[in-house]
Amino acid sequence: MVKKTDISLPVIRRLPRYYRFLRDLMQEGVTHISSADLSRQMGLTASQIRQDLNCFGGFGQQGYGYQVEPLYREIGRILGVQRRTEVILIGVGHVGHAIARQMDFTRLGMRLTALFDVSPALIGTQVGGLTIRPETELEAFCLEKKPKAALLCVPDRAAPDIVERLTVLGVTGFWNFTHYDIAHHHPGTVAENVHLEDSLMVLSYRLKQPRR
Amino acid sequence: MVKKTDISLPVIRRLPRYYRFLRDLMQEGVTHISSADLSRQMGLTASQIRQDLNCFGGFGQQGYGYQVEPLYREIGRILGVQRRTEVILIGVGHVGHAIARQMDFTRLGMRLTALFDVSPALIGTQVGGLTIRPETELEAFCLEKKPKAALLCVPDRAAPDIVERLTVLGVTGFWNFTHYDIAHHHPGTVAENVHLEDSLMVLSYRLKQPRR
Repeated sequence: MVKKTDISLPVIRRLPRYYRFLRDLMQEGVTHISSADLSRQMGLTASQIRQDLNCFGGFGQQGYGYQVEPLYREIGRILGVQRRTEVILIGVGHVGHAIARQMDFTRLGMRLTALFDVSPALIGTQVGGLTIRPETELEAFCLEKKPKAALLCVPDRAAPDIVERLTVLGVTGFWNFTHYDIAHHHPGTVAENVHLEDSLMVLSYRLKQPRR
Repeated sequence: MVKKTDISLPVIRRLPRYYRFLRDLMQEGVTHISSADLSRQMGLTASQIRQDLNCFGGFGQQGYGYQVEPLYREIGRILGVQRRTEVILIGVGHVGHAIARQMDFTRLGMRLTALFDVSPALIGTQVGGLTIRPETELEAFCLEKKPKAALLCVPDRAAPDIVERLTVLGVTGFWNFTHYDIAHHHPGTVAENVHLEDSLMVLSYRLKQPRR
């Protein structure tokens, strides 16, 4: 089987959607799907799908379509869902709390191991089976446990300082809910940004446009 | 002043970032910024910035740079932040609750006017000054108030039915936290998707890649 190891980031960003879609198909008992059906059901062109999935080839066969389960497993393997990367969450406000309670980290290849906050009202309370620690314990915790990634749910103004501390402690990945441009200020890191406000502003804009 | 009305969606998606950046500059008392400084501080090429901002021209002057406040106001006007689009939120679980409490809708050109849920434990309770209504009241509410957009924080399995009901009621915009592909199934709508799991899977992938 041909495997291309250097898959471009735009393709990677589309993989979780294929992964979810294939999981749904498996749950419906579908074992094969033609590229035409995949194309119609996912609202993508057949050429786009071929281009995306042929990156790590071998799952599509001319006139036969894709084998659902092997393709699902391969995409999962590429995305690393079988790993258990240790992550910590900083800032257990409304959003941080929802993230800690809602997300199924195990299914995403991660393990949430600690929550940190500065608020005396929150420190010591439990969220999703973890006790919120004071942010002053960040250094001691990271030196011992060496987490690779942090979920950053602090207020914008707190972000530059906390990111500086975390990068010094060896954290190289950030799931960033703040507006602080981590990748720009710390080129050695990887950051995936979730800019909720930006997304809502774009919706607001699109609502007043004529439909295209 | 030349104004281009048909700005492409990729440019629109970058505007909120400029908007935030210009707001920060204003708060620091900066009145003008050269494209070189803007480029360095935002981590974008000068050519990208010129291309983006010249879409609705007149704010950059050769050798003088951009006027911060007029540019900020114009971007806000394009994004529609002065409007008060009425939106409703469906599904006040962990994420829906965080959204209702955390987001400053007014600043984004929206007004959150109602919350809906199916859980008897939640119905009648208050979140962010609004009382959670039973989902059975959706039809009566929408027929009277005619909201244009809905923030969809329900479980995936509930999405197809609720979107069908909402589109019949005249809701055309969705801020979608579910994995249901609204725009594909309802071509007349606009949907901005926030796929939290996808974003975290991409981070997981990037963490194991050699830094580039």
